[in-house]
Formats: sequence, C-alpha cells, structure tokens
Amino acid sequence: MCELLGMSANVPTDICFSFSGLMKRGGATGPHKDGWGIAFYEGKGCRVFHDPFPSAQSEIAKLVKNYPIHSKNVICHIRKANRGRVCLENTHPFMRQLWGLNWCFAHNGQLKGIKKILIPTHFQPIGTTDSEHAFCWLMSQIKEQFPEPPKQETMLWLFIEKLTAQIAQLGVFNFLLSDSKSLFAHCSTKLVWIKRCSPFGRAKLVDEDIEVDFHKIQHNNDIISIIATRPLTDNEVWNVVEKGTLLVFKNGLIKYQSSSSYKDSQTNI
Amino acid sequence: MCELLGMSANVPTDICFSFSGLMKRGGATGPHKDGWGIAFYEGKGCRVFHDPFPSAQSEIAKLVKNYPIHSKNVICHIRKANRGRVCLENTHPFMRQLWGLNWCFAHNGQLKGIKKILIPTHFQPIGTTDSEHAFCWLMSQIKEQFPEPPKQETMLWLFIEKLTAQIAQLGVFNFLLSDSKSLFAHCSTKLVWIKRCSPFGRAKLVDEDIEVDFHKIQHNNDIISIIATRPLTDNEVWNVVEKGTLLVFKNGLIKYQSSSSYKDSQTNI
Repeated sequence: MCELLGMSANVPTDICFSFSGLMKRGGATGPHKDGWGIAFYEGKGCRVFHDPFPSAQSEIAKLVKNYPIHSKNVICHIRKANRGRVCLENTHPFMRQLWGLNWCFAHNGQLKGIKKILIPTHFQPIGTTDSEHAFCWLMSQIKEQFPEPPKQETMLWLFIEKLTAQIAQLGVFNFLLSDSKSLFAHCSTKLVWIKRCSPFGRAKLVDEDIEVDFHKIQHNNDIISIIATRPLTDNEVWNVVEKGTLLVFKNGLIKYQSSSSYKDSQTNI
Repeated sequence: MCELLGMSANVPTDICFSFSGLMKRGGATGPHKDGWGIAFYEGKGCRVFHDPFPSAQSEIAKLVKNYPIHSKNVICHIRKANRGRVCLENTHPFMRQLWGLNWCFAHNGQLKGIKKILIPTHFQPIGTTDSEHAFCWLMSQIKEQFPEPPKQETMLWLFIEKLTAQIAQLGVFNFLLSDSKSLFAHCSTKLVWIKRCSPFGRAKLVDEDIEVDFHKIQHNNDIISIIATRPLTDNEVWNVVEKGTLLVFKNGLIKYQSSSSYKDSQTNI
C-alpha cells in the first residue's frame, strides 16, 4: 500500500517538516520505495515533482526537503506498487485540467475491476494504474455534470461525494484531490489529520530525529491542517477520520464533512 | 523575448550540458529572468520542473543541471515576460493530455489579439499568457479534427503545420511542442539546430566556461539533435531554420520539414 500526505493552510506554508518524515518511509523506515511525487499549488499554478525512484535516496526529494516551497494546498504520495509497473507515468499525483484549473489526485488502495466497470470519457489515463483510471473517470463525470463550474461550490462537493461512494464500492479508496481551491480527503480504511493553530506547540517526527517548535515559525493567525495515512509525529494527537468519510478542507479548515453535519470554522476551534 | 531549448534523441540522453548554458541566460548572461521550465519525457511519462524565479540563481535549476535525467524528448524555456505577469501559472512549458499522451508546449514570441480571434474549446488556459492560449486552441483543434489519434502520424504533422500557419499570422510564433513521440519545432523568426552524431567532437558553451568531449560520453550509434533560439556553443556549426518552417524530429532525426521535401535519415547523414 502507498502513503498519502496532504496540507491545507490559510497562508502559503512550507511542508518541509512533514515531508522529511514521509520521505523516510520511501525505502528507509517504510517499504514505499516505488516512487513518489508531490504537487504544490501556488495560486492557480501547480508545481509537481515526480520521481520513480525511492524517496529516501532521491536527489529530488532532498531538494524538496531543503528548499521551502510555500503553498496553501499540497498533495504528496509515496508508492508501494501493486497495480501498474514502476515508471514515471504510474507515479502519483496525477494531474489534469478542467475549467482553467489544475486538478491533482493521489490514491492509496486498490480498485478491483475498475477498468471494466467505470469507463472515462473526456479524460484518458496515460499510465496503467487503477488510481489514474479512477481519477480520469471522476474528472470525466465532473465535466459531464458541470461543463462549466457550478455557481455554488457545495454542489461540486456533493457530486464528488457521490462519485467517491460509487468508486469506493470497488475496493480501498483513500485519496487526496485538489482543484487548487479545496483539498478533498477521503478515508476508505486509513486516514488521520491534525490542525495546527495558535497556540502552536512543538512537534517531533516519528521517522526521523527532527523536532520543530511551530511557535517560533508560524504567526498567530496561521491555520495549517495536515492529512496523512499514518501520524507523522509522536507527541501530538491526530484525529482519525471515520471510514467512508469525505472531508473538504479550505484554508486549513474543514468546510464539509460527509455523513455528519460537523463543520469547522475559525470561531469554534 | 524568451529563449527555447529542445532535444530529440534516439537514446535517453541527459541535457545537462546545453541546459547549463541556457540557464546562465536567465538573469546572468541574458535578461530572461522571469522564470523557466523544463519538460523531460521518459516513455509516456513526463517530468516538468517549473520555477517563476530567475534560472541563473534557481535552486531547482541547480538540481536539473547536476542531476542527469535521461530523456529522448526535452522542451525547455526561459522567460522574459511580455504578456502575462510573472507567476507559476504563466511559466512554460505548458502541459495538457490528449489520447492518453502528455503534450508539452513552449513559445517564444507575441501573438496579437489571439484571445479574441482564436477561441479554444476543449482545453482552457490556466494563466494569462498568449502562449498558453495558443497552445489550448491548437490542442482543441487537434481534438476536434482527430477525436482518436490518426492512423498515419503524417496526417497529424500536416494538420499541426496548417494550424501553425494560422496562428503565425498573428505575430511571432517560434515554438517547441511534443506529444511524447515527436518533437515539433517551428521557426517564425529565430531558431537554430544542430545534430550531434558519430564521429562526435568537442563542444564549448558560449555562456559558461564549460567544454565537453562528446566522443568520451556518447556511443557510436547515438544521434542527438539540439534546437535552440540562439547557438549554445561557439565552436560548432548550427543550422539556421528558415523562417516559416515547421520541423518534426523523431529519435534525433528530422522526419518532416514543411515547405520542402527534405528528410533526414540515418542513411543520408
């Protein structure tokens, strides 16, 4: 299985600390050595780094770790291949464009028989993973339902929730998705998240001997949510996402959560 | 104006040498300080590095310069902004997907009034450059003409030649385009190219004090064509592309050249 890492923040923030921990799992503290990738949104632009080699030894991962790129939405993935050989075109996150926006997607899980059951129309896969196939089908459905972006974004969120439920019937479908505005996180079996905000504290990575004092780095109004397959730190409390739940993050806050009316906002942190 | 750099090769080859020269022009030996980008095809996969900062001082450029990525098709661009502000989404090369293939595009020039005259249908721009607009229109036209890839690739080449002529009426349209199989290079005002093959010789960069002996690096059967806005070396003879000409490279060789019947092949080098 693969591992996911996502970030949603209200100010452009670097993900170097969390990324350092995850990268170790790509061939050092974890078996996810079949490539990795990361997408940084900067406004409408999106920078994606892909590498089919183990992240723990990757020169590109070293750069990303040491060169802070500030972003409000990040999607990262380390791969343990099950479907599709190890090569660049099978490396997550996958990217497509719709409505003049960059959409990125990374997946953890397996979707049995998806290639025969759900046929993408407007978007075709380039590689051979079930993940990219699921993404292309999801994007095709969105484009068919909304040739133009819906006026109310909640309409999009509800439609993605519906599509997610349909795909999730085929297997394990933990994923991160972004259209540059929101970060969608779905838990099929395994997903945790944490919100860091004032008063900021210290955090210590599980996978590497690195500790950071966010109080010294972040400003009082900063809000940063980190989503991951497994907790990346061992001295903080991570929220476990309930199975079958889709979360929609915007600016570091949960704006929508399927299967309950819970909503997060700055006033009720 | 911007500068272009492309490579077509018959074996996966690194472009570190040529890239070193071009990067210097991004704020050091040249004024192209408004960002840069490079796309490396590896099979059907494509790795794109984008940076809205000057290449001469870029950490990411340093990595690309020192970390050999082997590719058969490369498109690189350094930007001197004229249309569209300096930001990530306006940084070339631009990428879209069609027929399960990654298409990349980089442009040098200006296209007057294109946004009002040529309206893209299937592909929408994300940024505000005339370049991305031209690319989206070109891709939309290809998708309309060929919902499925044409059986003979020459049909695609001729269609791209026709579209290119139409866009070029609006201004300066030097560009590099790839669908991962071929590299298209169009000269509107300024483009040169060189083919390196056995017997390989020495080459010395114009912009940096670097010399390389390709005889020691390349194998006898390697064929590498480099396309650029201006010659990158000062001890080799570069071919000047005639204005209004579209070249189609495959595996390091010119397979089609508009406005003449000249074709390059391994037997008539």
